[in-house]
Amino acid sequence: MLSAFFDLVAERQQAIGSLLCVGLDPELSRIPERYRQLERPIFEFCKDVIEVTSDVASCFKPQFAHFAAADALGDLKDLVALLRSENLPVILDAKRGDVGSTSEFYAREAFDVFDAGAVTVNPYLGGDSLEPFLKRSDRGIILLCRTSNPGGADIQNRRLAEGGELYEHVARLAATEWNTQHNVGLVVGATRPSELARVREIVGGMYLLLPGIGAQGGDVAASLAAGAGGGLIISSSRAILYPAAGTLDSVRQVALETRDVINSHRQ
Amino acid sequence: MLSAFFDLVAERQQAIGSLLCVGLDPELSRIPERYRQLERPIFEFCKDVIEVTSDVASCFKPQFAHFAAADALGDLKDLVALLRSENLPVILDAKRGDVGSTSEFYAREAFDVFDAGAVTVNPYLGGDSLEPFLKRSDRGIILLCRTSNPGGADIQNRRLAEGGELYEHVARLAATEWNTQHNVGLVVGATRPSELARVREIVGGMYLLLPGIGAQGGDVAASLAAGAGGGLIISSSRAILYPAAGTLDSVRQVALETRDVINSHRQ
Repeated sequence: MLSAFFDLVAERQQAIGSLLCVGLDPELSRIPERYRQLERPIFEFCKDVIEVTSDVASCFKPQFAHFAAADALGDLKDLVALLRSENLPVILDAKRGDVGSTSEFYAREAFDVFDAGAVTVNPYLGGDSLEPFLKRSDRGIILLCRTSNPGGADIQNRRLAEGGELYEHVARLAATEWNTQHNVGLVVGATRPSELARVREIVGGMYLLLPGIGAQGGDVAASLAAGAGGGLIISSSRAILYPAAGTLDSVRQVALETRDVINSHRQ
Repeated sequence: MLSAFFDLVAERQQAIGSLLCVGLDPELSRIPERYRQLERPIFEFCKDVIEVTSDVASCFKPQFAHFAAADALGDLKDLVALLRSENLPVILDAKRGDVGSTSEFYAREAFDVFDAGAVTVNPYLGGDSLEPFLKRSDRGIILLCRTSNPGGADIQNRRLAEGGELYEHVARLAATEWNTQHNVGLVVGATRPSELARVREIVGGMYLLLPGIGAQGGDVAASLAAGAGGGLIISSSRAILYPAAGTLDSVRQVALETRDVINSHRQ
C-alpha cells in the first residue's frame, strides 16, 4: 500500500516511462545571463526548466537552501504551486527535523506553507520528532538514511554493538515502527551502491530517493542493480540545470539522455 | 580560545550575570489578543518580549520553524537585525544540515540572509557537511548531540561497537576534528542530566546549549551540576513567552525568576 504521494509518483513513472527526478538547485551565478535581467530570475529559470523537462521527469525536487540563500522563498512557493497545478509530484528537499513540538511547525512549513507533496527529513532526533510528519498520510516523508557524501560515514556508518551500522538501524525503523501510514521513503546516495543494496534488503519495496547521479558521479548501472526490487526515484540536479551549452535545448537534451541511460539499465 | 560569537556570549553572561537564553517560538494562537490586531503581530510581540527581557537574557534563540510556518520569515530577519543592532547574541535555531555543496547555501542562509551569530546544525551528515558552517570562524555552530526529547534515544543512544553511545561519538568529533576554528558548541537537553555530565567530561569547557528548561520540564539544579566546568547557555522558550497572565510584566517576571533560579544553583 502506498500513500497518496508515492501513488502519484508510481503512476507518473509508469505513464511517462521515467524514474528521473529533476532537482531544482538554482544558483544565480550559474543560470544563463539572459535570466539575470529579469525581475525574478530564479523563478523564470526554474519555470523554463520545468517546462522543457516535465514530460521526461516523473518528479521534481526543489532544494530549499538554494532558494533561501538567494532570499527567493517566494519563488519556491510559486514553483511548487505551478508543479502541483500540473499534478506533478514535488519533493521539498529541506532536510528538516526537530523535537516534536517544533517539528509540528516544520511539517506545516513543508506541507501547508509550501504545499509540497513530500519532504526530506533528518532522523537524528528519533521517532517522536518524526510524528508530526508521519501522521500526514497523504504526504511523503523521505528520511535520510545513507547520504551521498563521503563524510556521511562519520555517523551513518558507525558500527553498532547490536550488529550492523547506524544507517541499517535507520532503515529498519523506517520500514517498521515509523511507517504506520505507509508514507515513508529513504534517501540513499547513488554514490553508495553496496549500502543501497543493503537498504533494499532491509526495507523491501519502499521508495528510495537516489541523489548523486550526474555532478556527484553516482553510477547509474550500479545503482539500478543495487536498488532493484522496489521503488526508485533517481535525482539529478546540477548536471541537468547547468549543461555546458547553457541553453534550454541542452537542458532538455541532458534530461532525455539521463532518462534513457536510466531506462537502459532497468531490470 | 573562543570564537567571536562565543566571546560575545561569555562577555554578556558576565556583564549581566545571567546564563538565560530566551527562545523566541512565536505561535499566533498563543500570543496576546491585542497583538493580533496589528499588521505584524509576530514581529511586534517578539520585539516587546526582547525589550522587557534584554537586561535579563544573555542570548536570544529565535526558532526558524515557528516563523516559517506562519509565513513570517521577514519578521525573523527584522528581529535578528534588531538584536544584532543592540549587540545581543542571536542563535538561529534552524537545525540545518545537508551535503557539502548544499550546506554552503544553508550557511549563507543563516549567516548572510538572516545574519545570525550562531546556528544549530544536525550532525547526521558528518564532517564534510559541516565544513561550510565551521569555516565561518566568527560565527557559532551549535551541533545537536543529545536532544531533549525521549525519542532522541532511537538514534543518539545507540550503543556503538567501539564502545560508548552515538551522542558520545558526536561529542568527541565536535570537540576535536570538527572544532579547528574553536567555534563549535553542542545542544544537550536540560532533560538529560546524566548524558549532559558525560558530554561535559568529553568536551571540556566547550559551550553547551541546554533547551528544555520550563515547558519541557528540565531540572535546573541537576543541569547546572551536570554541566559545570564549562560554558552553559540555558534556554527557555514557551514558559517565558506564554505565562498564564499573558502580560509583558509577567513575561519579564518569569524571565527574572528563571535567571534567579539558575543563578541560585551556579557552582
